[in-house]
Amino acid sequence: MFYTIDILGTIAFAISGVLVAFDKRMDLFGVLIIAFVTAVGGGTLRDLLIGNTPVSWMKDITYTYVIIASAFFAIFFRSKINYLRTSLFLFDTIGIGLYTVIGVQKGLQAELHPIICVALGTMTASFGGVIRDILCNEIPVIFRKEIYATACILGGLSYFLLVRLPIENDVALLISGVIVIVVRLLAVKFKIALPNIYREKIRN
Amino acid sequence: MFYTIDILGTIAFAISGVLVAFDKRMDLFGVLIIAFVTAVGGGTLRDLLIGNTPVSWMKDITYTYVIIASAFFAIFFRSKINYLRTSLFLFDTIGIGLYTVIGVQKGLQAELHPIICVALGTMTASFGGVIRDILCNEIPVIFRKEIYATACILGGLSYFLLVRLPIENDVALLISGVIVIVVRLLAVKFKIALPNIYREKIRN
Amino acid sequence: MFYTIDILGTIAFAISGVLVAFDKRMDLFGVLIIAFVTAVGGGTLRDLLIGNTPVSWMKDITYTYVIIASAFFAIFFRSKINYLRTSLFLFDTIGIGLYTVIGVQKGLQAELHPIICVALGTMTASFGGVIRDILCNEIPVIFRKEIYATACILGGLSYFLLVRLPIENDVALLISGVIVIVVRLLAVKFKIALPNIYREKIRN
Repeated sequence: MFYTIDILGTIAFAISGVLVAFDKRMDLFGVLIIAFVTAVGGGTLRDLLIGNTPVSWMKDITYTYVIIASAFFAIFFRSKINYLRTSLFLFDTIGIGLYTVIGVQKGLQAELHPIICVALGTMTASFGGVIRDILCNEIPVIFRKEIYATACILGGLSYFLLVRLPIENDVALLISGVIVIVVRLLAVKFKIALPNIYREKIRN
Repeated sequence: MFYTIDILGTIAFAISGVLVAFDKRMDLFGVLIIAFVTAVGGGTLRDLLIGNTPVSWMKDITYTYVIIASAFFAIFFRSKINYLRTSLFLFDTIGIGLYTVIGVQKGLQAELHPIICVALGTMTASFGGVIRDILCNEIPVIFRKEIYATACILGGLSYFLLVRLPIENDVALLISGVIVIVVRLLAVKFKIALPNIYREKIRN
Repeated sequence: MFYTIDILGTIAFAISGVLVAFDKRMDLFGVLIIAFVTAVGGGTLRDLLIGNTPVSWMKDITYTYVIIASAFFAIFFRSKINYLRTSLFLFDTIGIGLYTVIGVQKGLQAELHPIICVALGTMTASFGGVIRDILCNEIPVIFRKEIYATACILGGLSYFLLVRLPIENDVALLISGVIVIVVRLLAVKFKIALPNIYREKIRN
């Protein structure tokens, strides 16, 4: 089941990359690359930092096929893709939930400190979008207005509380993934943002 | 012979970096760094992704000497460098042919899937230019108007067809490198670009 | 003692990241990330290139705590932080001195060529600032007007002269660190910059 959601997340991330590349009027190759880095960028950074090489997507060709197929789908149906934005947002949100959990797990396997595990989970979920924005010459959206990464951090931290309860490890992982998803959905629904740290300036 | 062409490619990439850094009016240090990352960036990314560390240029100091010498050459003869643009274009094109082949080979050594090998070859040939453009705060040129990477992909794929023929491995590598070069030269000569994926918008 | 200065350097780099993130009006998460990459970016690149994984800051949680504390300090006292700029400049300068020395040492441990060791030292000291500027969508300041990296290169090279003298290795490292610091301080005090390589253009 994890694998299925992982693939759905990959599709959503790939398509979100295509949409940004469209806005920049990139050519076919550029669109494919942006789709690719958006989908696998986070996992690649995580694998590099912990020394898990060759990185994951190089060892399982399925990701490559899924990303290329998703990108061509988005290119051919570009005029209709707007109707899919709600579904995409859901896939994307489910994707970051799962990507966070995968990152935390990889950190645990490498016997790293819980805080570092949470950082790895957050990177896995969010770095693809960061590198997408850098390649498109934008300040990464995540640094400016998203509760995105905060949801990953809260979900990741909750795992380390949950494992102290008398429940199975897989269940704790699942619940922490769900927490990421719920926090993100609530934040978007109720337009919750991080506290504004620039209040003083605005008052003046 | 491979080594000689590799060095010629390194020179061409280093000088192409210097020319872009000039346009941004970087200082001496900036120019050297851009020359360096343009020349070794692709191979470095490849080595990191497959876990071949320390990365190649750290193990053979020749590359460092060649890049520094090329950069100073370009700085001292900057008013004349325009006369060399045709030679540089040839070096650069030969360089990407060889870099593609080297990347494919490294992927084979790491026992990766043919498509991943082609991706590694393409990265080796093109990522130096991408990182040059990011450091210079430009949308990478390769994402917008070049047949560059497509030539690498076609050459890389051709290798996996050629090895099925009754020819030696080295010959197959050589031919696939030549295919990269020929595709690039033809594309530039006949101004062939990737299919425009934005037709609908232009029609409206 | 090295460890104490390392921590002071980490604090200074983290706060310098916060100040740049403020200018870009990033949210709380963005500010923390920029603080983090500015402080650990250089060491991370070095560790990745030589294959020292998991990278250093993942193995010692102290860095993470120090960076988060520094960032919150800078956020809460943001209206007063300007009075600290001189102290910060000193921390930062001491930090690059030490970071250079650490990078050189790691290169020696990996048995790399002296020039590569100097490059690793310079990267350790300067790449955090480069990645900070890329994430903030600026051309890295270091490529345009700083004697910063040149100080690291001179200090790093001096180590390989000093070890030929009949002095202990630790003393040689310490002196080369001090050379980085002194060169930087003198360069800033007397406004020494790299030779202008654009003279011809200005004359015309």
